[in-house]
Amino acid sequence: MKLATILHKNEQMVVLADDEKKRYLHIGQAAKELLNQKLDTSSMIDCIQMGQEFIDTLVQVQEAAVSAQDSDSLYIRFDEAQLLAPIPRPQKNIFCVGKNYADHAIEMGSEADIPKHVMLFSKTPTTVIGPEAYVPNHEGVTDSLDYEGELAVIIGKTGKDIEAQSALDYIFGYTIINDVTARDLQSRHKQFLIGKSLDGSCPMGPYIIHHSAVPDPSNLDIETKINGEVRQKSNTSHFIFSIEDIISTISKGMTLEAGDIIATGTPAGVGKGFKPPKFLKSGDTMEISIKGLGKLANTIK
Amino acid sequence: MKLATILHKNEQMVVLADDEKKRYLHIGQAAKELLNQKLDTSSMIDCIQMGQEFIDTLVQVQEAAVSAQDSDSLYIRFDEAQLLAPIPRPQKNIFCVGKNYADHAIEMGSEADIPKHVMLFSKTPTTVIGPEAYVPNHEGVTDSLDYEGELAVIIGKTGKDIEAQSALDYIFGYTIINDVTARDLQSRHKQFLIGKSLDGSCPMGPYIIHHSAVPDPSNLDIETKINGEVRQKSNTSHFIFSIEDIISTISKGMTLEAGDIIATGTPAGVGKGFKPPKFLKSGDTMEISIKGLGKLANTIK
Repeated sequence: MKLATILHKNEQMVVLADDEKKRYLHIGQAAKELLNQKLDTSSMIDCIQMGQEFIDTLVQVQEAAVSAQDSDSLYIRFDEAQLLAPIPRPQKNIFCVGKNYADHAIEMGSEADIPKHVMLFSKTPTTVIGPEAYVPNHEGVTDSLDYEGELAVIIGKTGKDIEAQSALDYIFGYTIINDVTARDLQSRHKQFLIGKSLDGSCPMGPYIIHHSAVPDPSNLDIETKINGEVRQKSNTSHFIFSIEDIISTISKGMTLEAGDIIATGTPAGVGKGFKPPKFLKSGDTMEISIKGLGKLANTIK
Repeated sequence: MKLATILHKNEQMVVLADDEKKRYLHIGQAAKELLNQKLDTSSMIDCIQMGQEFIDTLVQVQEAAVSAQDSDSLYIRFDEAQLLAPIPRPQKNIFCVGKNYADHAIEMGSEADIPKHVMLFSKTPTTVIGPEAYVPNHEGVTDSLDYEGELAVIIGKTGKDIEAQSALDYIFGYTIINDVTARDLQSRHKQFLIGKSLDGSCPMGPYIIHHSAVPDPSNLDIETKINGEVRQKSNTSHFIFSIEDIISTISKGMTLEAGDIIATGTPAGVGKGFKPPKFLKSGDTMEISIKGLGKLANTIK
């Protein structure tokens, strides 16, 4: 199940994406027409917080739509809507794990930079943009804008003190995040928040893939291309801290809520890692692909 | 104007506090009865986002209530309601400035720790509790819980790239925050987010004082007592970075939104600064007073 948030006729709604037929299933409309059921699809976070009931309804809606006659009115063509970030407005800052691939920690400094404990910082909700939006170049604010392709976990169930062995039960699904970073601000202000929170610095999407379609999140190929050139190429099996460890560590004493977003860190190959550095400039295209999650492409402007 | 959020008969509402008469003015009810006006007071953030219109209405409501006859039904006695944090659920993480008093920077390390640029981290929305709630001791998660009394600024107008000279125009009001910190987690995880975000680690209140009643926020006495003993005693005139600088720095490339909260840093005298350190334990009472803003008192449990 590929869950998307779109803007269609000025209405924001959660839909199911069908990449082959290039159309979205209007699940709110389908639930009403085919199941005679009211389903509020105005907010992805609200849908996630409905829990298993939402997923059960989705399955029914999908089945009913397949066998429905005259079902054209239940679909919205890709070119009729704007694809937004799956969670356009997070309910709190996005949690981000720093230096979770050893090769990236080393390129940012040395072996001494490989963390012994989960390093966690955040990006403000105002950073989030969708797959069809431009990333501002923030001229005059930064001269060292950089990309970071990352797997992001969407929490599906609120919990605290979650044990590592049950951590995957708390995941709703997965998406891709580009943790765009102003390197100069990141280092100038010591704590990362400022350098990580420029407007539009968190492209997200294209979809949330439900966990049932991602049986092994700890073995996913991830690749970032800049202007077509492969810069990052790794696999989530190279994580220093597993998804289970991350969820368990964050939730010790801190409640994780359904709808929360955790970006799991980026592999080697960021612009700052090159000598001389290859920072982003206007017109650069960034494409992040994760096996099974699709491709997130954005341009700097 | 002392704006509070209370829970009264299971309903959360914004009210005006009258400390002398120990009662709240039910502004929603008063607007309806005395001004024949509908005022949605269910959320402080929504009220703030109404802008000047909200303040104008408040002034009218207050005046009408004073001259009203049989006005008892417009008031709620302090003991009839639970006082919550003025913003019980922030719309994003709380921005926090680190080491903004030189004497605190030195007690945490040395003169080399006095920052040259604003250091910014955050606390999750789940940390917020009200003046009447206990701060959990988080036994088994941390053994070095510490207090930090701070002035907090509430943003009243959304803006980006705000110039220092107009920064005060973007402030709605002020409140007190206790930036409770797990020192072991803060240092173990390098970036501060984890050590700053344990559940209940951000007591806030008692009220938001509208900026019109705080003519000079850069000259406010601040004091923290633990079990009646004065531990922190300073004045906001000792800030390294002024409120204007902080707002200007954060908003460079990052949109600050009406309802956002910025804690401005803590002076010397935290538990970690003593030799041996004086960390918090169950039963300890913490009282933070800021001139003109009242007193925020909470107990560890």
